[in-house]
Amino acid sequence: MNLRIPGPTPIPPDVLTATGHPMVNHRGPEFAKVLGSVSDGLKWVFGTQSEVFCLTASGTGGLEAAVVNVLSPGDQVLSISIGAFGDRFANIAKTYGAIVESYSVEWGHAADPEEVERRLALNPKISAILVTHNETSTGVTNPLQKIAEIARAHDCLIIVDAVSSISSIPCPVETWGLDVVVSGSQKGWMAPPGLAFVWLSKKAWEANAHAKMPRFYFDLSRARDSLERSQTPWTPALSIFFALEQSFKHLHTEGLLAIYERHKKAGNLTRQVALRNGFELFADPAVASDTVTSIKWPKGADGKAISASARDDFGVILGGGQAKLQGKIFRIGHLGFFEHSELEEALNVVAKLSKKYLGNTSK
Amino acid sequence: MNLRIPGPTPIPPDVLTATGHPMVNHRGPEFAKVLGSVSDGLKWVFGTQSEVFCLTASGTGGLEAAVVNVLSPGDQVLSISIGAFGDRFANIAKTYGAIVESYSVEWGHAADPEEVERRLALNPKISAILVTHNETSTGVTNPLQKIAEIARAHDCLIIVDAVSSISSIPCPVETWGLDVVVSGSQKGWMAPPGLAFVWLSKKAWEANAHAKMPRFYFDLSRARDSLERSQTPWTPALSIFFALEQSFKHLHTEGLLAIYERHKKAGNLTRQVALRNGFELFADPAVASDTVTSIKWPKGADGKAISASARDDFGVILGGGQAKLQGKIFRIGHLGFFEHSELEEALNVVAKLSKKYLGNTSK
Repeated sequence: MNLRIPGPTPIPPDVLTATGHPMVNHRGPEFAKVLGSVSDGLKWVFGTQSEVFCLTASGTGGLEAAVVNVLSPGDQVLSISIGAFGDRFANIAKTYGAIVESYSVEWGHAADPEEVERRLALNPKISAILVTHNETSTGVTNPLQKIAEIARAHDCLIIVDAVSSISSIPCPVETWGLDVVVSGSQKGWMAPPGLAFVWLSKKAWEANAHAKMPRFYFDLSRARDSLERSQTPWTPALSIFFALEQSFKHLHTEGLLAIYERHKKAGNLTRQVALRNGFELFADPAVASDTVTSIKWPKGADGKAISASARDDFGVILGGGQAKLQGKIFRIGHLGFFEHSELEEALNVVAKLSKKYLGNTSK
Repeated sequence: MNLRIPGPTPIPPDVLTATGHPMVNHRGPEFAKVLGSVSDGLKWVFGTQSEVFCLTASGTGGLEAAVVNVLSPGDQVLSISIGAFGDRFANIAKTYGAIVESYSVEWGHAADPEEVERRLALNPKISAILVTHNETSTGVTNPLQKIAEIARAHDCLIIVDAVSSISSIPCPVETWGLDVVVSGSQKGWMAPPGLAFVWLSKKAWEANAHAKMPRFYFDLSRARDSLERSQTPWTPALSIFFALEQSFKHLHTEGLLAIYERHKKAGNLTRQVALRNGFELFADPAVASDTVTSIKWPKGADGKAISASARDDFGVILGGGQAKLQGKIFRIGHLGFFEHSELEEALNVVAKLSKKYLGNTSK
């Protein structure tokens, strides 16, 4: 199986074995040890000395936690959306009563920091920014560091969906001055889905003290109190913790700089091989993601049939287009645990099938 | 290891192996098949033809979903609490703006249906009841069927925490006329923690259409729409689905009646062995749980030292007392995958250690 969706990603065999570890007492010393080891790993990758919290939830649960723990109903928020996940982030904030100003960028492009600056200058009531670091639906990476500088200059909280970026591409949360940062275990972390990670800056914790959006399961102050006793407030997804304890061994052995370099190479390679095979890239090459590449279906090609044949006849599993990109693009994930040869193989298969199904369609 | 906490429970070896299954596309046919198989199993155990939803969350997340999907801020709710989990359920409802009337029963006892009847008759504005079927913190099972009859007579929604009951003791959701029922994968289901299960009656779905508590990650109407396409709205904890697909084979082979009988025997046996060893039971024997037994620490016994020695010297992991029962009781879980001999062994170890540490303390 060549699983090329942008998460859940393939898992190293030893990590899969660890996932099947027998159960332990989640209130005892065995779990405290695992939680400590995973917490240390998370702090290392996030680039922080303060705690990163593990919530039993998917990345979307982490995004909800990020919003409801620092905002109150009626707060004015600037949503920077460059795709489906940016839209989702804004919808969460609206659901919980934030007043959301939408800066929506044409899909395939990144946000313009100058436009962010302009909007914050125009509306000084905006107290927080929601931004996607790496937009998985379009394969675009936002200029997060620049946006964070602007947020700081305007004393705005910057709340970041880093689900498919951090652990694959640089996102040092303290150096860049971010406030709330979210990721998910099924991305560059080389582990199965089931845990979301959330980090809060000191400023975000101050906001938390006054934040009035309702929260219980995702209440991070409970997570903080529990973590002081090396526990989680609710029964955690133990299997995913065992997986992460093992997958961090891979990340530590490789080292952060080598990991970033590997993903950068994978992004370049995937785009090159796609172009060489005659495909057109969907994302603006200047801001194309190094964790997922979005590629247009050739004109007249039957994407559904090609994806099915790639899967059933060649074991290549492609990511589809989401929301308004459904049927228009396919996506190749290259984050976490992969070989460069698998990326080439996937694209070669799609190229071969495109010709076949193009012929069929044009008859 | 003799893991005797009331969840996470021990997992059969073949289910652990399944937990380590490689990742698949959560939007593809491989996952659709697993989800279908797990859904069928859930419907069978819940005793319903309609869908049971799997949320990537712990049981507490399921309880939050149960509340926010059918209630609005300002709704009057009767909370029947007989322990720590009943209190938690009420706190969730309060957090999201319900007006909660508390019927709090002395810990160790069950709720009195007549008192429920009296309270509903006194306050006709109460539109929903929150009730714990099996209170894991005290080892008591509520007379759920009788309470449900009263709820129906007063046209109240009955929202049930069945986390540690259903799949171990009878809880046929349709026959009993329940409205919202929640469980968690780490209990009688013989799978690791990470998934909560939530079922809604027709009446609960009608309430859902008007329920105004904010919800996004736990929005069950999204779960319903996705399930029609054999998907979940957000990336699911795949590993736990693989585990459940396998653990249902155990449940199917044994059969529901045999499962209930096995737990009933385990409850009886645990209480008998405890008494034979000179322990005093915490829960009223008339309503004692068949999935978890709560036992008082002998006077003067150092519970902390005994638990540590049981764990470190004998591999017996006991459940501790929660909230106000901390240090006063210990608990023996007997749900899911266990042998009767393991229950006897655990109690024999505690009895032996109690004598030892009793001697130490009285010196």
